Order: sequence, then C-alpha cells, then structure tokens
Amino acid sequence: MEYKINEHTNKLVGMLIKESKKLNLSITNGPMGCRIIDAGIKVDGSIEAGIKISEICLGGLGSVSLVPDQKINITSYGISVFSSRPVLACLGSQYAGWSLSTDDFFSLGSGPVRSIAQKEKIFKVLNYEDNSSSTCVVLEVDKFPPKEIVEKISNDTKVKPKNLTFILTPTTSISGNIQVVARVLEVAIHKVHELKFPLDRITHGHGYAPLPPISKNFVMGMGRTNDAIIYGGIVQLTMKGPDKDLKNLSKNLPSNNSKDYGRPFKEVFESYGGDFYKIDGSLFSPALVIINSQESGKSFLSGKVNEKLIKTSFT
Amino acid sequence: MEYKINEHTNKLVGMLIKESKKLNLSITNGPMGCRIIDAGIKVDGSIEAGIKISEICLGGLGSVSLVPDQKINITSYGISVFSSRPVLACLGSQYAGWSLSTDDFFSLGSGPVRSIAQKEKIFKVLNYEDNSSSTCVVLEVDKFPPKEIVEKISNDTKVKPKNLTFILTPTTSISGNIQVVARVLEVAIHKVHELKFPLDRITHGHGYAPLPPISKNFVMGMGRTNDAIIYGGIVQLTMKGPDKDLKNLSKNLPSNNSKDYGRPFKEVFESYGGDFYKIDGSLFSPALVIINSQESGKSFLSGKVNEKLIKTSFT
Amino acid sequence: MEYKINEHTNKLVGMLIKESKKLNLSITNGPMGCRIIDAGIKVDGSIEAGIKISEICLGGLGSVSLVPDQKINITSYGISVFSSRPVLACLGSQYAGWSLSTDDFFSLGSGPVRSIAQKEKIFKVLNYEDNSSSTCVVLEVDKFPPKEIVEKISNDTKVKPKNLTFILTPTTSISGNIQVVARVLEVAIHKVHELKFPLDRITHGHGYAPLPPISKNFVMGMGRTNDAIIYGGIVQLTMKGPDKDLKNLSKNLPSNNSKDYGRPFKEVFESYGGDFYKIDGSLFSPALVIINSQESGKSFLSGKVNEKLIKTSFT
Repeated sequence: MEYKINEHTNKLVGMLIKESKKLNLSITNGPMGCRIIDAGIKVDGSIEAGIKISEICLGGLGSVSLVPDQKINITSYGISVFSSRPVLACLGSQYAGWSLSTDDFFSLGSGPVRSIAQKEKIFKVLNYEDNSSSTCVVLEVDKFPPKEIVEKISNDTKVKPKNLTFILTPTTSISGNIQVVARVLEVAIHKVHELKFPLDRITHGHGYAPLPPISKNFVMGMGRTNDAIIYGGIVQLTMKGPDKDLKNLSKNLPSNNSKDYGRPFKEVFESYGGDFYKIDGSLFSPALVIINSQESGKSFLSGKVNEKLIKTSFT
Repeated sequence: MEYKINEHTNKLVGMLIKESKKLNLSITNGPMGCRIIDAGIKVDGSIEAGIKISEICLGGLGSVSLVPDQKINITSYGISVFSSRPVLACLGSQYAGWSLSTDDFFSLGSGPVRSIAQKEKIFKVLNYEDNSSSTCVVLEVDKFPPKEIVEKISNDTKVKPKNLTFILTPTTSISGNIQVVARVLEVAIHKVHELKFPLDRITHGHGYAPLPPISKNFVMGMGRTNDAIIYGGIVQLTMKGPDKDLKNLSKNLPSNNSKDYGRPFKEVFESYGGDFYKIDGSLFSPALVIINSQESGKSFLSGKVNEKLIKTSFT
Repeated sequence: MEYKINEHTNKLVGMLIKESKKLNLSITNGPMGCRIIDAGIKVDGSIEAGIKISEICLGGLGSVSLVPDQKINITSYGISVFSSRPVLACLGSQYAGWSLSTDDFFSLGSGPVRSIAQKEKIFKVLNYEDNSSSTCVVLEVDKFPPKEIVEKISNDTKVKPKNLTFILTPTTSISGNIQVVARVLEVAIHKVHELKFPLDRITHGHGYAPLPPISKNFVMGMGRTNDAIIYGGIVQLTMKGPDKDLKNLSKNLPSNNSKDYGRPFKEVFESYGGDFYKIDGSLFSPALVIINSQESGKSFLSGKVNEKLIKTSFT
C-alpha cells in the first residue's frame, strides 16, 4: 500500500494539539466547527512548533531541524531540511499553491490538504492522490479564516468542516519564520519544474538557509524569509539523467539567473508596486545549488551565498 | 490548563530509569528511600544522558543537542539549546539557585524541584508554582546526598522522600560537562534579570557553546565549563520593548562588561582565594549576545567569541 | 541486567519495517523464509533509512545525524555520530568483520548478528555475548543473499532463518553512503585495537565526516566513503590512562601515518590491482584525532583534515 500523506500528518497534528501548552499554541474552534491551531497570532508560538509545522507541511516526508550558524553575525542559527521523497513532500504538500481568498482574506493554502483537493495543475504531473476524511491546511496569515474559506475547502475536499484543521503561522511569528525558511528545498524543486525539467529525475534533496530575526510586519518578514532562501539558501539534489542535462540545469537553477537578483526582496517587491506576480519568477530559488548525478557520480555546482545581502536584509 | 513542569519532567526521569543500562546510569535508593540516579560518580554516565538531563533541568521546555564544531581545535563539538519559554525553563527550573548544603555537603539545587519549593526570591517575579507529588533535583556533586538534604527537600516541597529523585552529575563527568554548558541560555537570562530588565519581554531564546574536554578535577571542570560560556557562548534572544532599551541591554549583557573578563575562570576563581561569591557577578554571561526586537525587527549584537582564551582554558 | 544489543535493535528493525513506505524500503522474504530489507537495490532507499540503519549497526548504542557542512563545496552535509559505549557499539556490532561469502557472493557481515555469532577474534577482547532468538545483519551488497549465506548465519547463531533479517545497503545508494561514513568512529576505535592499545580505556567517542555525493559504481562509492573518513574524518575520544601513552597513541592514530596516505582511496585500491588486503591497514583511520584524558584533563590532537584530497575524490 502506498504512503498516504494525511494518514501520517493527522498524527503529527494530533501531537501539536496534545502538546499545545508546551508549544505555546492556542486551539479553538472556527467557522462551521473547524479546528484552528493559532501558532502566532494571539499567542507567541514556539521554535519547536515551527519545526513540527514545517514537517507537517512536508507531508511527513521530510526532516527539519534548527542548527547553529556562526557565519552570519545577525542571526546565530539556520534551518536544515532533507527528504528522500522531495517532489511529493515539497510540491504535493508543502508548496503554497492553492489560492484560498475572499474579498477581504488573502491566503495561499499549503500542506496536506492540497493532495486531497487536487485543484492545481501540478497534480497532473505528480500522479498522487489522497482521500483522507480528515486533513489540515497551513496558512501564512495574521487573521482567522472566514466561513467562506472553510466552506470552500470542505466542498473541494469532501472533508467535513469538523475534521478540518487550520494551522495559522503569521510571517512575524517564529513559527511562520521557520516554516517559510524550511521551504528552501521546495523552492529549488519548484524551479526545476518551472524550467520544464522532469521531476521524476529527483531522488533525494537537502537544503539549508539561515533563519532571519523576527520582523516587525508582514512585508519585512516576507522580505527576510525570501532573502534567506534567495541569497543564503543552499540546496543539494541527487538526480538521474544525462550529465549534460544536469549540468545545464544546475547553471539555470540558482537565484542569480534572475534579472531581479541583487537587491533585498522587500526592495524588489516595492519596486513593482507591491505586486508579487510582477516579480521575475526565476528569482525564487536558492543561492547555491549542487546537483549530484547518481548515474555518473559527478556533481554540478552553481551560484553562491551572498552574505553581504543577507546582512543588509536581516539588519 | 497551564503547563506543569513536573508533570512533564517526571516522564523524562522515567525514561532515564528505563534506559539506565544503555545510558550508563546507576539507579539506587538513598536516605529515607529516595531515588538516586548516579550519572557520573561510580559510573561513567553518557553523552545521551547528559543531553536528557539538560532537558530535564530545563523543565521539559527546552531542546538540547550535541553538534559538530570545527572552529576550535581542542574540542570537536558543542551544545545547542533553544526554548520558546526560556524564562520559565531557565530561571524557574534550570538555574542552580537553591542552596542545599550541610556542614560537609555543598550543593546548589537545580531543576524541576525548585518550582515546587519556591524558596528563592526569583519565584516572586516568575509567578509560577507547581505542586506535583513527585519531583527531581539535579546536583552537580561528586558524592551522594546525606539524609539531612533529603529531609530538607521533602519538608520544603511536601514531596515524600520515596517520590524524590536525585540526579547526580559531577563536573568531571560527561553528563555534568554537558548539563553545565547547556546553561548558556540560562546565564544570559539570569543576567537580564540582574540588570533589572523585565523578564516578560523575552519571548524566545537560543544558545550555543563549545563543549570542553573532560577535566581531571572539580576546579578544572568548573573553570572550563564557565569559560565555554563566558568566552565561547553565543545567545540570541527574541524580545519585546523599545529599541533604545534593547540596544542598551545588548551592550550590557556580554561577559566582556565584567572587570574580571580576560583570564581563564579558574585563574579568576583562584585569585579570589577560591571564594566564588567574590567574583564579579557580571562575568557570568555569554561572550556574544544578539537581541532581536520582534516589535521593530531590528537586531542588536554585542560582545564577541574569544577563541584564544577558550584554547588556553581547554588545553 | 546487562544491556542486550539485539533486544534493542530488533525494535529498531521493527520500525524500519513499519515505516517502509515512508523510508523507500522494500520488504520481502528471501531464502529459507528469512526477511530482506532492501534499502537501495531495487528501490532508492532514503536518507532517514540510512541514519536508522547506521544506528542499528551501532547496536542501538550510538546516535547518528545528518548535519549541514558548508566548508566543502562538493557536498553540503556530513554525518555526526557519538556513543558512550563506543567499543561495544563499534567493534561488537558495527564493524564489518564477519566474512560471509560464497563462490559468487562476497560480503562482510556487520551489525547486531555478530554479537550472537561470536565468530571473530575481537570477541575474546570484548567479553560480550548476546543470545537473542532473532537478529539482523547489515550487508553492503548490490545483490540478494543466496541460500548458503542464510544457512550459514542460522547455523552459527542458532537463530531460525525466519527470525533473521538482512538489511542490504549498496555503496551506490544513499543508505549505503550514510551507513559507511557513519563508521568514522569505528575506524578510529578499530585502529586503537590494531595498535594494541587496551580498548577498555575508551569511555566516550564522537566522530564527524563529510557525506560524499552518490557514486556511479561500487569502486567509486567505496573510494569516496573511505576518503570521507581518511581525509575528512574527525574523531574525539575520551580515555583513561597515562598521558604519555595517550599522547603516543594520538600520534599514531590518524591516517597520515600510513605509507598509502596522500592519494584518493580508489587510486590506492587500483594500484594494488584491486586487492583490498594489500592496502596498508594503518590507512583506515580518521584524518584528525583528538584524545582527551579524563584523568589529566589534557587533550592530544594529531593529524589534519585534507580538504584538497576530499575535493579531488568527491568531484
């Protein structure tokens, strides 16, 4: 029997609830009887919750840890993530790809719920479907979801509202900070797909990025977490395929291929009048990428960490 | 319901006992039927026990890990610790603040027992009280506790001697070495309090310090573990409050503010004729402190790691 | 009651089986009804499985983790291992010392089975015997074991074939890559024994080595994993004994004492016509060794990491 994402992540969500006091989480009921795990809006959340939520985002198929980093003086730690089913973990679950917005609530759905809803084009490529009767969705928001969103998710997944858990991690919380930076591997894999390279050639993946200090508002938080990945992220992929293709891929993968590379993300964002979708998509990628061919044993390295820009962003 | 320290740490103590053979621990009964976990006197103890005991000291509210360190040539690893309830974890449990001595037994009580005993002034600030019917105390000693100490603790906590567990970690054991260095975050938070800064402004904390080699006797061990923190410790705190206050705090926090800074701790200790209480209190602090304001998003860094002094101390 | 290796590792094997889908493992039955855990032949295996298998190899007495490494540009992570019963863990279980070959199947048995079989001279020194009715053997092979091997192990251990689990980790798989590099501590302890130094003087051990990229075939894989240890491995041992002896031992331990030091392992291997046993035995040792005397508190460091050779080997 195949691995089922929600079967595993529902257990992890159960652990968040059981340890909510220790983890600084608030558990309440929302519209239509859904469950809300507030990990940073009315409560402070915690480092440990941020790590566990990141692993839930990865569909239970990735390991996330906080590690000391002594290279950059503005922060003293970073996030390490690895997975041996990185395509399913990152694109089938972690990717914030499901638009869940109303007139006054903007959010992108991330996490296990996506593999049930199957609302995005990417699922045609992934060839994976889950059908659990309970699930969770992770939202990087600073307010509670309205009834319309609960209803929409319930309709699209056939999961009853009472079996639906929202995990809320605002960008200005430590949980939000961690779970976004833990996307360093996903960002690389998503770009592999954007470059139209076959995803089934990826076997294992490992990523690292420095964890920025907590920010005062959404835009600063979004800027720093993106900079952590774009200018500080390091990703190593083990892949199949001809060396020529992998070498070429490695050249095109890192963020420095983008015309928007070179300025803090917040500045780029503001230069486009705050329109996220005007930003050059190829900017969303780690700073340094190593591709290891498991067929030839060769490795192709491209890009580099930009410590100066990280310092500018994090300060 | 609030988080209860002993409810959680009693389970961790149960795991130490269950895995005692694997962890190189000796479990016996002491005076009045109390339980003694010897983690380094008659047995060698273990790295893993040192880590678990450190987490017990932190009241179950902190994560401790051993990580490779390749900067300093005298040791190859260090201790990383983080907590999102650092004030309660460090001052309400881990701090070795309860004087437990008789004529011929000197010790400072640390760990979960303190939150029940409430014998120290700090508990007026913490506003936290536990009332468990079983508990544990961690002592950095090289002999077993006498009956008077068991009786005193039982009287002060209303915990029956048979429900009282002593965890003994001499400074010359690996468990002792680890659990003292794991205090790097506590030392910073204690100094925040000494500087009369409101503790409730601290949200999250993370610390790192190199782990010294095992020492031949108490004084050398005490010297090196203190030097690991004073000259090698790095602490990052996420805090609330005006930037002006946080910047000022960051300047005053690191160990280099002390008049006793600059010599190995053992030398300082001996220069005061071995009288611990004559040492300038402001020396007890990490080498480098980063304070991140979650209100402004700014970070304030002060102090620096003194690798030369660490090498002198550890050699 | 003494710690029993198989009692603990059988539980870990049970976890591999229970989580086989998540860990990319294939579980089947082999000759005579034995159980086969394929961790990299017909399936890709996983990083997480590699870590767990390494801990099984260590008899449940060691901790293994994957950590970011930013020093060497060809790989971005390394393996950290520690144990407080390193002699039993490494030589009584992890060491690949039991010859299990037939005319057309070459393998060296590693792991918990060895402590039951007791077929090697080393067990006279270790003074440890297990007698479990079920066990596992780890083989670094790329084909399934023939009936003769199952029969031989069953005869030598009195364990019924159906209670015997083979864990297969080819050198070209991520699991194989990890479990070999996790031998960095074992290699040091084995050399201590080769140098005829009493093993009971070793109390704690910690090792680190960079994790090479996946290789295209057995020889390249064997070369890189050996180079990771020989030129990149760092081991720290806490020991008893006179300083003079420990200092002398530290000088003789690192790989640079070998006449075969200085070339990639694959080149050395090929220069001896592919005859493993012609290679100078003293080459099998970490690059850098720190010995910490728990009696004097002194540390003796010898050898150094050879980053240039690692880059040559890993590229």
